[in-house]
Amino acid sequence: MKQHHITLTKDSRAPFTNTAMYCVGTGRMGLALHEEYQKQLRAVRHVAPFEHIRGHGLFTDDMAIYRPWCDDEGVWHEGYNFTYLDRVMDSYLNMGIRPFLELGFMPEKMASGTQTIFYWKGNTTPPADEDKWTGMIKALLRHLIDRYGYEEVSSWPCEVWNEPNLPGFWENADKAKYLRLYEISALAVKEVLPEMKVGGPAICGGQGSQDWIRDFLTFCREKKLPLDFVTRHAYMGQSTLRKGRYTYHEMCDVNYTYEEMKTSREIIDSFPEYKGMDMHITEYNTSYNPMCPIHDTNLNAAYIAGLLSCLGDVARSYSYWTFGDVFEEIGVPSLPFHGGFGMMANNLIPKPTLWTFHYFSRLKGECIHRDDKCVIVKNKDGSLEGVCWNLCRNGRDALTLHIDLPEQGAYTLLTSLADEDTCNPLKIWHDMGEPVSLKPDDVEFLRTAAQPMNASVKLEAGETAAITLGQNGVCHFILRPYRHEGEYGYDYEWYREHC
Amino acid sequence: MKQHHITLTKDSRAPFTNTAMYCVGTGRMGLALHEEYQKQLRAVRHVAPFEHIRGHGLFTDDMAIYRPWCDDEGVWHEGYNFTYLDRVMDSYLNMGIRPFLELGFMPEKMASGTQTIFYWKGNTTPPADEDKWTGMIKALLRHLIDRYGYEEVSSWPCEVWNEPNLPGFWENADKAKYLRLYEISALAVKEVLPEMKVGGPAICGGQGSQDWIRDFLTFCREKKLPLDFVTRHAYMGQSTLRKGRYTYHEMCDVNYTYEEMKTSREIIDSFPEYKGMDMHITEYNTSYNPMCPIHDTNLNAAYIAGLLSCLGDVARSYSYWTFGDVFEEIGVPSLPFHGGFGMMANNLIPKPTLWTFHYFSRLKGECIHRDDKCVIVKNKDGSLEGVCWNLCRNGRDALTLHIDLPEQGAYTLLTSLADEDTCNPLKIWHDMGEPVSLKPDDVEFLRTAAQPMNASVKLEAGETAAITLGQNGVCHFILRPYRHEGEYGYDYEWYREHC
Amino acid sequence: MKQHHITLTKDSRAPFTNTAMYCVGTGRMGLALHEEYQKQLRAVRHVAPFEHIRGHGLFTDDMAIYRPWCDDEGVWHEGYNFTYLDRVMDSYLNMGIRPFLELGFMPEKMASGTQTIFYWKGNTTPPADEDKWTGMIKALLRHLIDRYGYEEVSSWPCEVWNEPNLPGFWENADKAKYLRLYEISALAVKEVLPEMKVGGPAICGGQGSQDWIRDFLTFCREKKLPLDFVTRHAYMGQSTLRKGRYTYHEMCDVNYTYEEMKTSREIIDSFPEYKGMDMHITEYNTSYNPMCPIHDTNLNAAYIAGLLSCLGDVARSYSYWTFGDVFEEIGVPSLPFHGGFGMMANNLIPKPTLWTFHYFSRLKGECIHRDDKCVIVKNKDGSLEGVCWNLCRNGRDALTLHIDLPEQGAYTLLTSLADEDTCNPLKIWHDMGEPVSLKPDDVEFLRTAAQPMNASVKLEAGETAAITLGQNGVCHFILRPYRHEGEYGYDYEWYREHC
Amino acid sequence: MKQHHITLTKDSRAPFTNTAMYCVGTGRMGLALHEEYQKQLRAVRHVAPFEHIRGHGLFTDDMAIYRPWCDDEGVWHEGYNFTYLDRVMDSYLNMGIRPFLELGFMPEKMASGTQTIFYWKGNTTPPADEDKWTGMIKALLRHLIDRYGYEEVSSWPCEVWNEPNLPGFWENADKAKYLRLYEISALAVKEVLPEMKVGGPAICGGQGSQDWIRDFLTFCREKKLPLDFVTRHAYMGQSTLRKGRYTYHEMCDVNYTYEEMKTSREIIDSFPEYKGMDMHITEYNTSYNPMCPIHDTNLNAAYIAGLLSCLGDVARSYSYWTFGDVFEEIGVPSLPFHGGFGMMANNLIPKPTLWTFHYFSRLKGECIHRDDKCVIVKNKDGSLEGVCWNLCRNGRDALTLHIDLPEQGAYTLLTSLADEDTCNPLKIWHDMGEPVSLKPDDVEFLRTAAQPMNASVKLEAGETAAITLGQNGVCHFILRPYRHEGEYGYDYEWYREHC
Repeated sequence: MKQHHITLTKDSRAPFTNTAMYCVGTGRMGLALHEEYQKQLRAVRHVAPFEHIRGHGLFTDDMAIYRPWCDDEGVWHEGYNFTYLDRVMDSYLNMGIRPFLELGFMPEKMASGTQTIFYWKGNTTPPADEDKWTGMIKALLRHLIDRYGYEEVSSWPCEVWNEPNLPGFWENADKAKYLRLYEISALAVKEVLPEMKVGGPAICGGQGSQDWIRDFLTFCREKKLPLDFVTRHAYMGQSTLRKGRYTYHEMCDVNYTYEEMKTSREIIDSFPEYKGMDMHITEYNTSYNPMCPIHDTNLNAAYIAGLLSCLGDVARSYSYWTFGDVFEEIGVPSLPFHGGFGMMANNLIPKPTLWTFHYFSRLKGECIHRDDKCVIVKNKDGSLEGVCWNLCRNGRDALTLHIDLPEQGAYTLLTSLADEDTCNPLKIWHDMGEPVSLKPDDVEFLRTAAQPMNASVKLEAGETAAITLGQNGVCHFILRPYRHEGEYGYDYEWYREHC
Repeated sequence: MKQHHITLTKDSRAPFTNTAMYCVGTGRMGLALHEEYQKQLRAVRHVAPFEHIRGHGLFTDDMAIYRPWCDDEGVWHEGYNFTYLDRVMDSYLNMGIRPFLELGFMPEKMASGTQTIFYWKGNTTPPADEDKWTGMIKALLRHLIDRYGYEEVSSWPCEVWNEPNLPGFWENADKAKYLRLYEISALAVKEVLPEMKVGGPAICGGQGSQDWIRDFLTFCREKKLPLDFVTRHAYMGQSTLRKGRYTYHEMCDVNYTYEEMKTSREIIDSFPEYKGMDMHITEYNTSYNPMCPIHDTNLNAAYIAGLLSCLGDVARSYSYWTFGDVFEEIGVPSLPFHGGFGMMANNLIPKPTLWTFHYFSRLKGECIHRDDKCVIVKNKDGSLEGVCWNLCRNGRDALTLHIDLPEQGAYTLLTSLADEDTCNPLKIWHDMGEPVSLKPDDVEFLRTAAQPMNASVKLEAGETAAITLGQNGVCHFILRPYRHEGEYGYDYEWYREHC
Repeated sequence: MKQHHITLTKDSRAPFTNTAMYCVGTGRMGLALHEEYQKQLRAVRHVAPFEHIRGHGLFTDDMAIYRPWCDDEGVWHEGYNFTYLDRVMDSYLNMGIRPFLELGFMPEKMASGTQTIFYWKGNTTPPADEDKWTGMIKALLRHLIDRYGYEEVSSWPCEVWNEPNLPGFWENADKAKYLRLYEISALAVKEVLPEMKVGGPAICGGQGSQDWIRDFLTFCREKKLPLDFVTRHAYMGQSTLRKGRYTYHEMCDVNYTYEEMKTSREIIDSFPEYKGMDMHITEYNTSYNPMCPIHDTNLNAAYIAGLLSCLGDVARSYSYWTFGDVFEEIGVPSLPFHGGFGMMANNLIPKPTLWTFHYFSRLKGECIHRDDKCVIVKNKDGSLEGVCWNLCRNGRDALTLHIDLPEQGAYTLLTSLADEDTCNPLKIWHDMGEPVSLKPDDVEFLRTAAQPMNASVKLEAGETAAITLGQNGVCHFILRPYRHEGEYGYDYEWYREHC
Repeated sequence: MKQHHITLTKDSRAPFTNTAMYCVGTGRMGLALHEEYQKQLRAVRHVAPFEHIRGHGLFTDDMAIYRPWCDDEGVWHEGYNFTYLDRVMDSYLNMGIRPFLELGFMPEKMASGTQTIFYWKGNTTPPADEDKWTGMIKALLRHLIDRYGYEEVSSWPCEVWNEPNLPGFWENADKAKYLRLYEISALAVKEVLPEMKVGGPAICGGQGSQDWIRDFLTFCREKKLPLDFVTRHAYMGQSTLRKGRYTYHEMCDVNYTYEEMKTSREIIDSFPEYKGMDMHITEYNTSYNPMCPIHDTNLNAAYIAGLLSCLGDVARSYSYWTFGDVFEEIGVPSLPFHGGFGMMANNLIPKPTLWTFHYFSRLKGECIHRDDKCVIVKNKDGSLEGVCWNLCRNGRDALTLHIDLPEQGAYTLLTSLADEDTCNPLKIWHDMGEPVSLKPDDVEFLRTAAQPMNASVKLEAGETAAITLGQNGVCHFILRPYRHEGEYGYDYEWYREHC
């Protein structure tokens, strides 16, 4: 058993910027038409009210936006179809979430090449005709303004393309062509919506990635291009092992990832024109692979807790990739638990990571303590609220947190705990024999098993709060000054003494 | 720690009749108009699909059924208003539950006296005019037939009055007047609906109660009255202590209650004409008081498990009093947990007893084992399913159940456990300081805390199943022959070994 | 056929203040616990989004708020139970509507007398002990602040009692005692919530009513009492005929009622201290009787249209009495259509008056025309929007409105019409034989019949818009500059020419 | 004005078999994952409770069922993924509708060629390996049995492929290859599920189509193949005109289509082995093109009424193609009204044809009259119920139906009418300027406009019922013996006489 002692005083203060709810990732736009997708998004937002949503495939053919047409004299005209776009955007806005637009990929009929990515075949080549590309962007924005109003649409951030530093996502990872794409796209956006914030280069990490940021900023500066924020991604998977269709990695540690992000932050700040500019981590997760079993584990939840405690130091936002498991990048999932990115498995079964987000979403007070296992804030009403976690990388010991309280008097301690013993639907599914197709009773059983364990303790004056987390546990707690209400004659103890 | 060993063989068999879902009790009919009532009933039936519902007050004035009217010449006419009746019955039938009618109490304008019972003032005196009483019954049934069809209404059982052996419920507990009421009521029912099953005397226990049954049967036999079933109640509260508005009892044990019911059964069977006739226990619970804190406890859940395991031996049905806490007999509840009868507290917070019902509702196979801690059935698909409980009357030890399995091979053991540690919302509310008015966050916290703990174990061939229940725990388990599905390359263990 | 010509120019302007959505009336608070009530309120607000809701009975015993208690030594203490209050207020706020508090009636245990009003027996006597009354008000407000926040509760207007100038509503219509009640109540409110707006005297019309206002203001001025607004009621029923339980009146005309309100306005303005102070008409309707068949008619809808076009000239708000038919003042309704106050009949069947409110709720632009049959506003997007009505008091002619448009070009005219031919569920129910208990198919039939008739015309450049309303019709219309979108090759006319 | 007189006597009888609700068509299976699809299906079934649903694309790649896999040694194995299948089938069964299976099209990895059909690229070539095809069918059925039970799945009819007599749907319209496909498929079905009903050849009409049926039956007879029913399609579009992407046809008349179906019926009956065998018309509509504007018109509704009155004479069922407009065969619709097949337009706007189905769904009594404008049945409760229609092919006159009633006494006549004046959302959308993207207010306006006009008349004894239908109107009516209920003192007429 690991022990961790924290002493809080009335003057305790610690840095902590919490924008965990700013944005979340999603499978391609077209999947937002699915009922299961909508149900998962509603269920996730019920406990983790993300404000923006970002995903690929806005212009991919299943969204059916680009539709040139031919008149009866055989002349072709540019044309667009916003039926599915409206349906998706309506669903987001009605639910209270806003898009973080990503301009991509290329409609087949507009593409310069045939390279595609993913099971769903997103074309990843530059436009054959730049005017058609910018014409489509402008038509899209004008349509959105017409439907949702200028002010609303202006508030959506807009990013150009995705991971152009990978040849799969952008033909040959051709940097010059990306910079040109950024240039024409950003100018097109600002022509229609000067207030819309636009940014790039949406790179993933790896060799040379920091150079991409530097080159991108240099290019924007030289060309005096519109630029409102810088974007990049953060994944923790290192060496890769494949078994069948599944992927397994060793993970780097949280600090390694933090340092990588901090380096990007410093590069931005090294440009006087861009110093302090927002950096959005528009994707992050442990593994970057949607069939990597870690995503369904408590281990994942604990890693993410570590990230959420520190990424706000360097980034304006960080968008977990992805909220749910309606996702098809390497095919339609065949198992209920298959290592998908989602916080929620198909059939609306929460994964442990969902609770990490739920817990952080609640931290709104002033931070009074932060370390590598715990963040604690103080609320206006005097209560203390925190999240702690027990990442088990070497050894599998439980962790007990001891908190010396800053003020006299009795407290109520409420804890909500998700660890391998209390909230581990993956383990149950495994013990069930890893069934491919879940029957309704098993779905219900797993959903209940996927709820965290809520418990309470009354602390008498002078007692230390002690919170124990099992393996890879994440725990939310509130410490409230105790106040008794009740009613005359109500005696809770009676039946405990006279059973 | 208590230990309990069970050895199952292929030939194990045990008696067990499970009609736990036949009927459930409800606060007075008029409360069925409430939205909170409807929500609680839907929520309860989602996990415990009761088939019938029985409560008082069908003819009490808030249902506004009896409405004589005066013409412009000053002449009075009998008249009825079925607006609220329709609304309540529609709500039941649309939900899939049917009424178990209870004819009572007396409309004020039809009453011979002014005695009332409860905060809501149900008049408990005989009719001033028998023809008006039977006229109302017949009008009611004709209206129901017109609205729901003859066949549907015929299937609803019908009981005459409630607990006439108590002077509060029936003026002076006048037996002769009750027998007369039964006579005219039963004949009125059969005049309109010969197929409707009718019965009485709906007595509660206590001194002289068995005599009431004997006298009632004798009367029916002599008068050759219609009689389809016999009804009575079962409560376990003994000595009573009052504090403020709250009531506390010592409880008799399950066997004592069982024997009391068995005596009634034997009385019925002693009449050759009535031998084997259905006996319905139209109310039962631990305490008969709606502000008795036991109802909210795990102790209550364990007592009820004991009753559910044996009452089917002597009764056709047994109707838990009541499904929810929208209830006003001694006033509107002022605390979220106040010892109300419900399986569900106000604000839709399940109490432990709800899970006892959920667990028994699932036992549909052939019984292979029953003792005072456990019932086990075997399903057609070969799985074993059971409920076990750890009633803690003296001492507070945990209980471990060990089951030697009847067939070779690996098993998946799935357990759902509600004990004082895993599912005890009352304790949390107490630790919170017994707040009078719950804020939304606390409601959510309590609802999650009120879910049982679901867990799994894979048993290798030859292993014994072991199930541990904490204090006053009730546990449902399934033992399924283990079968592995999964998918090639999916390796659950990898991240457990490489974290 | 009546003809009415309107010529609009670019400079047309007319006075019109539209606060139709500020407030709506409701049956007593306790009925807000009913599911049917909640459904009706949601359905009404879906088309007429009222912002506040006001009704009687906050302190009447079915809300169970006042609950003094006795300790085990026999000493009594003041006490309150907010279980039902929370449930009702939660339901309002979750739906997006705020209370307009009315302080009344008297809890039985606090009353100085036994006089009650209504089937539901609201006690209408002064408090036996003023301190208990003000204690209860202060406890109520403190509880509301604790639950909903200071800022939220401060925004709810608060009125003292209801129609004290009627002896039924206030024992002996004792003016001095009402003024005293106002004094202590207003001071109690401000003690807890200085920002809460408080007012009175909530009188109904009739002889001496204007004097009550004058005396009330004089009293407040002299005592320097808190006073934020003045309230009164407006009903149009004159001579009364009774048949059985039903009431029939001749109605005064809209202008008569307007003048009555204007007189009150002028009285207020005649006090220098109160000049321009808000006057809220906290109840109005045609008849003041809840079994007056006019409320279900198109005639009622047309009268209300007339009132909505002018009441904003003199009053800050006007609150239609009531939104729905879950209402028990003179008993539980026995017919689906029984002349209840509601805009919606039981079983969720809209009455024509609902559409009058829906139509006025949409008028948000700048008024460019108003007369006794029509109001027209101009929206920012250039469209014109209006409501017109055809009140048929003598003769039953249809009315055609001709509008000369202010700008050149084609228009789309969209009309939504509720008149005796297009939207008259009452007539259908009558033709059905006035059934007491509606079967589901008939409910569906009536609901569809209760929808207005929506239609369109394309007006070519230079055409006059013509709108025809049948008997007692109310019509909403929009005139939009016509713009063609469509798609190449889509030919609407083809099948009209080739069928 | 056209006049049509009907005289009914107590002995009137007419033939009429109504199986309008047996089955309905749907866009490809994969679209059933869409939320808008599910909403439309629920909304359609709310008024027209179809029992089965049939569509293409069960095995097309977006359903992702066929998934062979490769082990780490490079060996390939057959494999299947039922994630999406389960999701779709769950949604159907939870809603209460059952699949009418259609086996097709070919998974790309199993196909012998590359020919595809539709925007969504269904492969329409024979299997490269017959064993893989039958292996997939058997695996599918075994999975369905495991999930839904043997009895449930046995009750689903199963058809082999779609329109193999068209070269687009089956490479070269190769009859021999289709017969072989039928042979292996039917045998595979029966191997797993002997009770499942299987049939073909699912042909569309046109030259040679009757020969296909004859040859198919001959083949089955000679090979002694399993065969439970024969299937074919029926469309009324004749000559075709194209404008842009839209299609316009002259229509043949109802009788022509009826005769075509009757010929198929007679062919079947000419085989002694198959005489009387069920014929299912597994698709029918006016036009076979999903961008043919007729589908949105009242004209379409009137045509379909004609078909529904007679197709039951020759076919066991007839499945309207399709229930809704979530449909992609020639691309994603770009206009709200674009001539899609659906009974309901996107955005949940009913088209007139929906009401034709609603009206016929209600005809359950014994038929007492049928002609080319009207069907009338008599219900057990003595009421008469009918559907009449006014197809306007030449001239656009209204039609008045006069019905001499068979029994004395007063009647209530309830009519629900959808004609060009009362229920014509297409016309309104056209007058709006054919907007591409509907704003919420316009959606609401159109939804209300798309409701039929419900009205009532009280007929005095001896009066003739008269029902007037405008252009292309379809009308449902009930004639009930009039019975007055009401309440003493309620006087409907008073306000009509004293307004």
